[in-house]
Amino acid sequence: MSAHQEVPYAPDVSERDGLMADNNRSVLVVGLGRFGSSVASTLDELGQDVLAVDKDPVLVNRWSSTIPTVQADMTDVLAVEQIDAGTFGTAVVAIGDSVEASVIATGNLLDAGITDLWAKSVSKEHARILQRIGARHVINAEMDAGKRVGHLVSGDYLDYIELEGPHTVVKIHTPAQVVGYSVGDARIHSRYGVTVVAVQSPGQELQYGSKDIVMHRNDELVIMGKQDQIDHFMRG
Amino acid sequence: MSAHQEVPYAPDVSERDGLMADNNRSVLVVGLGRFGSSVASTLDELGQDVLAVDKDPVLVNRWSSTIPTVQADMTDVLAVEQIDAGTFGTAVVAIGDSVEASVIATGNLLDAGITDLWAKSVSKEHARILQRIGARHVINAEMDAGKRVGHLVSGDYLDYIELEGPHTVVKIHTPAQVVGYSVGDARIHSRYGVTVVAVQSPGQELQYGSKDIVMHRNDELVIMGKQDQIDHFMRG
Repeated sequence: MSAHQEVPYAPDVSERDGLMADNNRSVLVVGLGRFGSSVASTLDELGQDVLAVDKDPVLVNRWSSTIPTVQADMTDVLAVEQIDAGTFGTAVVAIGDSVEASVIATGNLLDAGITDLWAKSVSKEHARILQRIGARHVINAEMDAGKRVGHLVSGDYLDYIELEGPHTVVKIHTPAQVVGYSVGDARIHSRYGVTVVAVQSPGQELQYGSKDIVMHRNDELVIMGKQDQIDHFMRG
Repeated sequence: MSAHQEVPYAPDVSERDGLMADNNRSVLVVGLGRFGSSVASTLDELGQDVLAVDKDPVLVNRWSSTIPTVQADMTDVLAVEQIDAGTFGTAVVAIGDSVEASVIATGNLLDAGITDLWAKSVSKEHARILQRIGARHVINAEMDAGKRVGHLVSGDYLDYIELEGPHTVVKIHTPAQVVGYSVGDARIHSRYGVTVVAVQSPGQELQYGSKDIVMHRNDELVIMGKQDQIDHFMRG
């Protein structure tokens, strides 16, 4: 798939009127595949001003009812000028099917003056090039998702946050051996070294971790600790 | 790409000897693309017994020096029997290039008796089929990564955990207006409603959130609160 044959479609300026008010908070998403459409939808749902562009009219058409979209090819400098890319505070280059198109679009948007640029890479080599030409954040979507699932499969975590050093914050279901106990009665901190940050019962308000909270079978716990402490707590 | 033309390679049983000791903790990863190889490497690094299979000898060859691998086609029932798939406690089906192969392999592994089955989907329709045939966890890798990046782009979060309801746990850099203040002096809870769970200075031990901790410019904070409270705290 060459990225150079497309004649850019002149965007209807009215589609972008709403974005002009606060340029620094508006985000340009380039590429409407699974990853890019998910980024754009999430931003839109979070109330962020977003414009999604793709050179493929079929994809643009599919998303145009839910997200502000424009058909344009960001590997074409003229198209980059036409949509006034430089006025966006942030861009996410979500082109995955062509490394060439990804790199050229990233270069064009950096040239247009966008400094907060996120780009999706499909390999280590691709990531290195994106970093060299100045992409501020390089996203290895498949690799990161794989790493995440590896952690989830291995540790029965529902979710987790990595911290520098040995500590982790993880979301888990209540381990069997403490079901029905309060945090204090189970002596969680003294026995396992982990800290219960929060307890979330289904359909209930979140409770901050305190000695009196009773943990039920289907509660979600947010706990913090070192990897081996968390493992110990989870295996009982 | 049809998944049915491959003649399965008879795996060298010696490669699996180490996995036999504790079957319930061993994980079969099917597919060595970017996502699958990332899952398998992560599990291996976490000390989990893992066997990765792919029908493509080139991919198997590339990963065989770092992860236990075997060339086999899990859409072929004979190959599934040959590697004794039923003895694995968990399987991750990471086939992305063919929905047909993904669904057939998933069915075969469920038939072999693996109940804790994770499968990667490439579309909503694919996800629905995987769920219907009994996959316990369906992973929308690209969509999840996109959602994640959307949150990160929008909120300046370094990482986050979603909770049921309005609360979120997020990792952020210290917001400018509280740099140099202690948690108590900045009156973070009373002014913003958020709770500082932990403060991580570069190269230092993690500190649990308490009133006396001083927050520096490059510290990572783990905070918990409602979305609008977190936004307020971050924007100052």
